[in-house]
Amino acid sequence: MRLDVLLTAGEILPADVAGRTVVVVDVLRATSTIVEALASGVRTIYPVASIEEALRLANTLGREEVLLAGERKALPIEGFDLGNSPREFTPEKVGGKTLIISTTNGTAVMAAAQSASRIVIGSFLNLSAVVADLARSGAEPVLLCAGREGKFGLEDGVFAGRVAAGLMEALPDAEWELNDGARAALALVEPYADLEALFRATAAGRQITDAGLEEDLPFCAQVDRHDVVPVLHDRQISAAPAPPAAAEASE
Amino acid sequence: MRLDVLLTAGEILPADVAGRTVVVVDVLRATSTIVEALASGVRTIYPVASIEEALRLANTLGREEVLLAGERKALPIEGFDLGNSPREFTPEKVGGKTLIISTTNGTAVMAAAQSASRIVIGSFLNLSAVVADLARSGAEPVLLCAGREGKFGLEDGVFAGRVAAGLMEALPDAEWELNDGARAALALVEPYADLEALFRATAAGRQITDAGLEEDLPFCAQVDRHDVVPVLHDRQISAAPAPPAAAEASE
Repeated sequence: MRLDVLLTAGEILPADVAGRTVVVVDVLRATSTIVEALASGVRTIYPVASIEEALRLANTLGREEVLLAGERKALPIEGFDLGNSPREFTPEKVGGKTLIISTTNGTAVMAAAQSASRIVIGSFLNLSAVVADLARSGAEPVLLCAGREGKFGLEDGVFAGRVAAGLMEALPDAEWELNDGARAALALVEPYADLEALFRATAAGRQITDAGLEEDLPFCAQVDRHDVVPVLHDRQISAAPAPPAAAEASE
Repeated sequence: MRLDVLLTAGEILPADVAGRTVVVVDVLRATSTIVEALASGVRTIYPVASIEEALRLANTLGREEVLLAGERKALPIEGFDLGNSPREFTPEKVGGKTLIISTTNGTAVMAAAQSASRIVIGSFLNLSAVVADLARSGAEPVLLCAGREGKFGLEDGVFAGRVAAGLMEALPDAEWELNDGARAALALVEPYADLEALFRATAAGRQITDAGLEEDLPFCAQVDRHDVVPVLHDRQISAAPAPPAAAEASE
């Protein structure tokens, strides 16, 4: 079974992901925020690449019906309802709502993965749920690290390594064919096991700290806070049905 | 002091390398071949991106005066004098000659690094010489992994990690500011210490093996076979003067 990790968004070619399950990874913070929002009861999320597209879609859907969220250089966008800090997405604020979210890296990467058969959103907040979902489906996944402004983001690489290790453990009898990125990601798991320390050291973490949002780092480092598996389908992200309880043991 | 590793060629922006020392890394096989060729007495090497450019330059310089070398999909190019197998570049064949070399990845990456103040060519064959050169110059280097067709190549990441570790050891009093790529590369050194096993597992290594050139893998895995430090200047690669003997101890 193939297991591929693309360490940077620029590596993706349509042929790499066509017909495959892609896990989009942008731990700091787009995919953590999406997981938190859905766990807080958001009905659906429209990821968009630009502020203009967000505003246009809000007009189409009805500005009163939606919440606009997103960031540029880690900071909230003027006139939007929410930033990109997962701590903001509480049930009180977002429960039952429709979100339009525009972030610098994560949403652009989702657009690049459009030829995939299934697009799953992963973060440490739902790590085991993502692994269980992949194990249950028997997918040969592509783990796509969004990084930051086209550059490799170490926190995304470590997450990809954790998913790869978890999947190999969940399906011990599978013969795995790993690409170079997967081999690298697996080597990152042990040295960077302390996620809070990791986040403080990375470029994305430092930018978030510089923006005064350092509390987002321990928040995004919470492993398995939620069971939700967000899936992007028809340009909308919503929660996939939970896998059956025995999923992790099956092959 | 800054120490940056770009894990994939697509990450490079002119601003990242402007005014800095860039080490171009394409271990399998472009940079290994360049090191071997210069150690075998080649006077100068013109790296070019396309076959057409190679032929045009050969006509300008005089076809009898130069040797044409290069590969496409690991195999020699029709009508060229040499492939991209470092084993071919013996003193008997190339000593005193001028080379024009066109390879899929390495030469394209050198073109992308043009705004650098100095471009050094690194491979395991001249690992310690590259580290000593960087330590002596006090550069804040960018280690640029060429990879393969825009994708991350694990062998280049491991080499970057070895250079980073060596430089930090050579200058123990420096305060190093590492980017995410450098932190990842350092984590690859120990798990992938067996270079021949590493090469056999990577995409580039498998392509070379499939082309019947598997003897290139142990050849490129020879650490410190040469002292030469190839430098790209004015579109030509030639050997830099060797650093003084005490270089590694200075700061």
